[in-house]
Amino acid sequence: MNGSSFGTYFKITTFGESHGAALGVIVDGCPAGVPLSAEYIQTFLDRRKPGQNAYATPRKESDLVEILSGVFEGKTTGTSIALLIRNESQRSGDYSEIASYYRPGHADFTFDAKYGFRDYRGGGRSSGRETAARVAAGAVACALLDELGIKVCAYTKSINKYVCFDTKEYLAERFSPEELASLRNQSPLNMPDADASAKAEVFLQKLREEHNSAGGTVECVMTGLPAGLGDPVFEKFDARLSHAMLSVGAVKGFELGSGFDAALLTGTEQNDPFYTDDAGKIAKRRNLAGGVLGGMTDGSDVLFRVAIKPTPSVYAPQETVKKDGSSYTCQITGRHDPIIVSRAVVVVECMAALTAADALLCNLGSKLSHLEAVYGIKK
Amino acid sequence: MNGSSFGTYFKITTFGESHGAALGVIVDGCPAGVPLSAEYIQTFLDRRKPGQNAYATPRKESDLVEILSGVFEGKTTGTSIALLIRNESQRSGDYSEIASYYRPGHADFTFDAKYGFRDYRGGGRSSGRETAARVAAGAVACALLDELGIKVCAYTKSINKYVCFDTKEYLAERFSPEELASLRNQSPLNMPDADASAKAEVFLQKLREEHNSAGGTVECVMTGLPAGLGDPVFEKFDARLSHAMLSVGAVKGFELGSGFDAALLTGTEQNDPFYTDDAGKIAKRRNLAGGVLGGMTDGSDVLFRVAIKPTPSVYAPQETVKKDGSSYTCQITGRHDPIIVSRAVVVVECMAALTAADALLCNLGSKLSHLEAVYGIKK
Amino acid sequence: MNGSSFGTYFKITTFGESHGAALGVIVDGCPAGVPLSAEYIQTFLDRRKPGQNAYATPRKESDLVEILSGVFEGKTTGTSIALLIRNESQRSGDYSEIASYYRPGHADFTFDAKYGFRDYRGGGRSSGRETAARVAAGAVACALLDELGIKVCAYTKSINKYVCFDTKEYLAERFSPEELASLRNQSPLNMPDADASAKAEVFLQKLREEHNSAGGTVECVMTGLPAGLGDPVFEKFDARLSHAMLSVGAVKGFELGSGFDAALLTGTEQNDPFYTDDAGKIAKRRNLAGGVLGGMTDGSDVLFRVAIKPTPSVYAPQETVKKDGSSYTCQITGRHDPIIVSRAVVVVECMAALTAADALLCNLGSKLSHLEAVYGIKK
Amino acid sequence: MNGSSFGTYFKITTFGESHGAALGVIVDGCPAGVPLSAEYIQTFLDRRKPGQNAYATPRKESDLVEILSGVFEGKTTGTSIALLIRNESQRSGDYSEIASYYRPGHADFTFDAKYGFRDYRGGGRSSGRETAARVAAGAVACALLDELGIKVCAYTKSINKYVCFDTKEYLAERFSPEELASLRNQSPLNMPDADASAKAEVFLQKLREEHNSAGGTVECVMTGLPAGLGDPVFEKFDARLSHAMLSVGAVKGFELGSGFDAALLTGTEQNDPFYTDDAGKIAKRRNLAGGVLGGMTDGSDVLFRVAIKPTPSVYAPQETVKKDGSSYTCQITGRHDPIIVSRAVVVVECMAALTAADALLCNLGSKLSHLEAVYGIKK
Repeated sequence: MNGSSFGTYFKITTFGESHGAALGVIVDGCPAGVPLSAEYIQTFLDRRKPGQNAYATPRKESDLVEILSGVFEGKTTGTSIALLIRNESQRSGDYSEIASYYRPGHADFTFDAKYGFRDYRGGGRSSGRETAARVAAGAVACALLDELGIKVCAYTKSINKYVCFDTKEYLAERFSPEELASLRNQSPLNMPDADASAKAEVFLQKLREEHNSAGGTVECVMTGLPAGLGDPVFEKFDARLSHAMLSVGAVKGFELGSGFDAALLTGTEQNDPFYTDDAGKIAKRRNLAGGVLGGMTDGSDVLFRVAIKPTPSVYAPQETVKKDGSSYTCQITGRHDPIIVSRAVVVVECMAALTAADALLCNLGSKLSHLEAVYGIKK
Repeated sequence: MNGSSFGTYFKITTFGESHGAALGVIVDGCPAGVPLSAEYIQTFLDRRKPGQNAYATPRKESDLVEILSGVFEGKTTGTSIALLIRNESQRSGDYSEIASYYRPGHADFTFDAKYGFRDYRGGGRSSGRETAARVAAGAVACALLDELGIKVCAYTKSINKYVCFDTKEYLAERFSPEELASLRNQSPLNMPDADASAKAEVFLQKLREEHNSAGGTVECVMTGLPAGLGDPVFEKFDARLSHAMLSVGAVKGFELGSGFDAALLTGTEQNDPFYTDDAGKIAKRRNLAGGVLGGMTDGSDVLFRVAIKPTPSVYAPQETVKKDGSSYTCQITGRHDPIIVSRAVVVVECMAALTAADALLCNLGSKLSHLEAVYGIKK
Repeated sequence: MNGSSFGTYFKITTFGESHGAALGVIVDGCPAGVPLSAEYIQTFLDRRKPGQNAYATPRKESDLVEILSGVFEGKTTGTSIALLIRNESQRSGDYSEIASYYRPGHADFTFDAKYGFRDYRGGGRSSGRETAARVAAGAVACALLDELGIKVCAYTKSINKYVCFDTKEYLAERFSPEELASLRNQSPLNMPDADASAKAEVFLQKLREEHNSAGGTVECVMTGLPAGLGDPVFEKFDARLSHAMLSVGAVKGFELGSGFDAALLTGTEQNDPFYTDDAGKIAKRRNLAGGVLGGMTDGSDVLFRVAIKPTPSVYAPQETVKKDGSSYTCQITGRHDPIIVSRAVVVVECMAALTAADALLCNLGSKLSHLEAVYGIKK
Repeated sequence: MNGSSFGTYFKITTFGESHGAALGVIVDGCPAGVPLSAEYIQTFLDRRKPGQNAYATPRKESDLVEILSGVFEGKTTGTSIALLIRNESQRSGDYSEIASYYRPGHADFTFDAKYGFRDYRGGGRSSGRETAARVAAGAVACALLDELGIKVCAYTKSINKYVCFDTKEYLAERFSPEELASLRNQSPLNMPDADASAKAEVFLQKLREEHNSAGGTVECVMTGLPAGLGDPVFEKFDARLSHAMLSVGAVKGFELGSGFDAALLTGTEQNDPFYTDDAGKIAKRRNLAGGVLGGMTDGSDVLFRVAIKPTPSVYAPQETVKKDGSSYTCQITGRHDPIIVSRAVVVVECMAALTAADALLCNLGSKLSHLEAVYGIKK
């Protein structure tokens, strides 16, 4: 079935293979009147772009985005916004051998199982390159969130055993999103802790020499979300967010707030006490809930974490089979990151932004007074 | 927005508040010809029913299901199946005080934030009682899976620090689904390890005396799924599964296969080698992927785990606020489980079954040869 | 695939067979705060109820509706609203013969073709009785529209050659919705023209004696809709409306405004000139567009018409086949209307109301200023 | 809300404004293994292309399609297929004046009402040029239908009072789809009756001189559809088809089979008798149902008709208002067809093909035996 769409109201549909003509996305359902330019979107794509540090794939792609529709005189028109990114690096030759066998940890086998054949060039549709379209779409979501004062910030929390500030705590408990972004941007691995970043670099250099790769975690904080986003029962905010995150290739786990640690806490430890702050707003003393109660945002920061597996493309020889089932020892070549985590940061941020933008729109009809406000009904 | 539906093809829509007239579900999209009876569905509801052990809420509900439509002469007709469960225990009196304040860890505050007011009787729509409708629907999914030789088995893996067989390993690596179900059913806490179960019982008894509650984890295994289920890019099998799990109230985390541990592994450790088994089927040497590669099932068992927070309803006094923002020390009364985990087991199982049933149907159109088979086209 | 849902935001899902235990609907996505009671819904069901005049089926059904969820203290809660109508008249015996053959003009053959078997009792899911659930849901939509000052009125425009006031013009050009409803309610056939109604009655009496049945048309007017409802390109207001109407069994055609006559007009005749009315509102001199331009409401009345085929259940002998393909002359017995049109009036009205309610909600996110109004953002 | 998607399983999402950078579509949900090439799609676009006869707009567009994704080694891969059509003729200057006023019969006013502003260049998103994306997508649907032996053929049935063969009968009752296509292609107006076509040409020439335009009807036949497509209750095949047709700008009415004439027939006249044909297949003696019973295809030809209004862009002076509400006499300039009908033929055909392709996929899960066939379960 069609699986290239995300979102209910703010809906995106992506396309593109690693070595096809182009990647892109249609964003449908973005409200009219949001300022948007190719330059703005490009800043997000540049953060995802390959070849930016020693640990990212050296593949050269300028990943320039073109707005094909839906923006007029610098603003969104309310109709579908199409964004196009041409592929420049289509070296099919590099990948020809992989047509014959199934790379461990990759989707080669499952694509064949599902569709009967596959575009084997560079992973085709299952390549990490697919995320470029998500990032372009996520930039549009961020343009909307900007107008509403909502911020999203993701960063590498850990690479293998190297954990920022050696804490399980969300860094948003210590830093503002702006500070986190600033610290993050100083690290080639997008780790806000320079020390952990330096150690992880040494570790990755060693892994690279061993023809191996590493996993890690990404944390994300969303601030400024109004309370009440997300829909009971099945469209809870955290359920949607989890769906968004697990849809990113290589993500193996998701947790919100205390997450898996909640299994070790008691009720009185886990429950966040409510109080009224100095501004008269109902707030919480702590945030183990991660900003969501009963599936709806509670007005505090949304805090979550994802686990990302090591790059499956390792240069070490691996046991596998050919399409005909015969055994084969494969040795992957080509251009591959020894770490996906740091490049996934902007992808996590964009998927979170898409989730939030959609939830904001889905929530507009939650009560009659909203309709009265929009349609100018006075009572 | 509407949030009471789950699934794309095999779609369920639920309704019902804790203390309303009834709970129920419409299952729409179930193929015609699946054997189904109220008795079969009842066996699932009986596993979820309150009052079955000392640690579950003593509330008495017989939770009898009535099939209102969609079944004729013992088989599903292909049209919408409505299932009704009348509420018997509607003691509104028990809950009247909670109308005035926001219980910590509950959805009281967020419901008011979203909708302007709420059905405060027993948690209304956000009560755990809502899951009865999921279980009824999940039973229909299981009836379909049965016909296709697919089994789903969930169990309590841990309660607080008490972990079955003291291992992080999935128990499906040691036991068949049938064995797991059998071991599980001997424990009042649905823990397949009698020793861990006994220790957890002692722990829960102590917590109960302290007016507190505990969290834990549930593990699940799905066997017999054909390879290729799930749709790239956003409708990956694991993304849907994660969505399903986080939609269950109290679930704070989800992981598939190696999950969060994948962040600590290297590529060669995480990648599952392929080989051809004695029957000539392509299989994997291990299953750290958890049965999903590139978002599609790979033909091995699907293995996942969820974290469940402690029951938020604890009898200990808690700091909170009233609707008007004034501070308040609340003391919850009524009938509440000191542990949700063991009753959530059948809910996890049913949500997994619903995800699998939907994926099986969504996958039917993946290749032209499927259409040719169904529509009798010969080439 | 599931086909028992209608609407995107204001979404309904129905269930129920003619001779099953019950019919009903879940309305999901209705905003919180809309006044709603079983009594209000009942007034709509009473208009659809069988046995109200000599030309409607004498089957006795009280069609009492029960609200199972989603309403608290007299208002909608924002969560799913379940409505239940028990079947009282389950005389399976009447229909047993029809299990063996395919009634011409009915869905017997196509149900078997699709599902392999069918609930043959009284037409099962394809019975006109299914529309009771639509009417119950439509009443909820009307409750929302009432709050926003929107009115919907349908009526029988013609039965066979008997046309109200002998005009092709929409009666809304002559009467207000209130006047139309009042005139309509004086006719046992729901025809606002007493003269035409009387002549049609004579005609129907003759047809009944001939064991035959008649078709006709229903017209509908919607007033008070704000301009801008409906979404380009595929979710145009008129496209949704047409979908809604053709989903009603027995409807064979739909036209908006000038409809099929537009094929005979020139551009200058069809184009409605704009002008500014005395209140300073942009309006149109005429309404051949039927209130929709480019798929969006233009602020004038929405005017449309549907064609309804004669009741397929006629008592005259008809040529057909049995399930095994053998030829058969069938003679339908049981309780059947010689005319569907007059009972379809409230169904048309309700489907139009559902379309409008959904469009109002879907439109909330059309521009940034709506979000700013709802979320209290000041610029 | 997002409105640029059509279809549930075989889903398309379009983008593009008349004078933007490009138009295009993503087709998501097409099965893998369908032969597809740009050349094949181009043949459909060439039929829609402007400037092909004296009555079509002289705007020059080569409308060359590029496949950006989803096709590999000449076959669809099962993942999203993106098709791009660059706009060549972006003469914004032609249209600058229309920014200030609302053209009668156009969507200028309603776009402003909905979105607050609009892309006024050439009608922007509401331009008839938008249909190029539908046609490109429809070609993909036709490629799938071809493999399953299903044919779709539309043609101009009438222009103003000039009706092919002067009959209300569907021409498919006289000609095969191949004959109809052949006769149609000999007429510059896509009318299979050369005589009617010649007369209509004279009429249009006169209208052009009078700065006016004409409407007409398009008929369509679909052959080879298996019985059972379409889903009760709301997703009836004819309801979907009607939705598809009314989504085409300028379409004002839809009828299936006997359509509006059904209102004038009796039950015995309208009901199509079943019989068993020489090949042992259950068939019907006539087809007033138009190939659909109870919302599902009955195995006979699907026959339907749409009414298309005259081109709203007429050169004659028209009364209207400016954005500020001041009265204005507009005189439209630029390049416009005096007749839309003949160019709409391929659009109707493509929308019908999209509806059929979607219904074929949606129907795959209708019964358990289909799943057993696809997943190789033996009983």
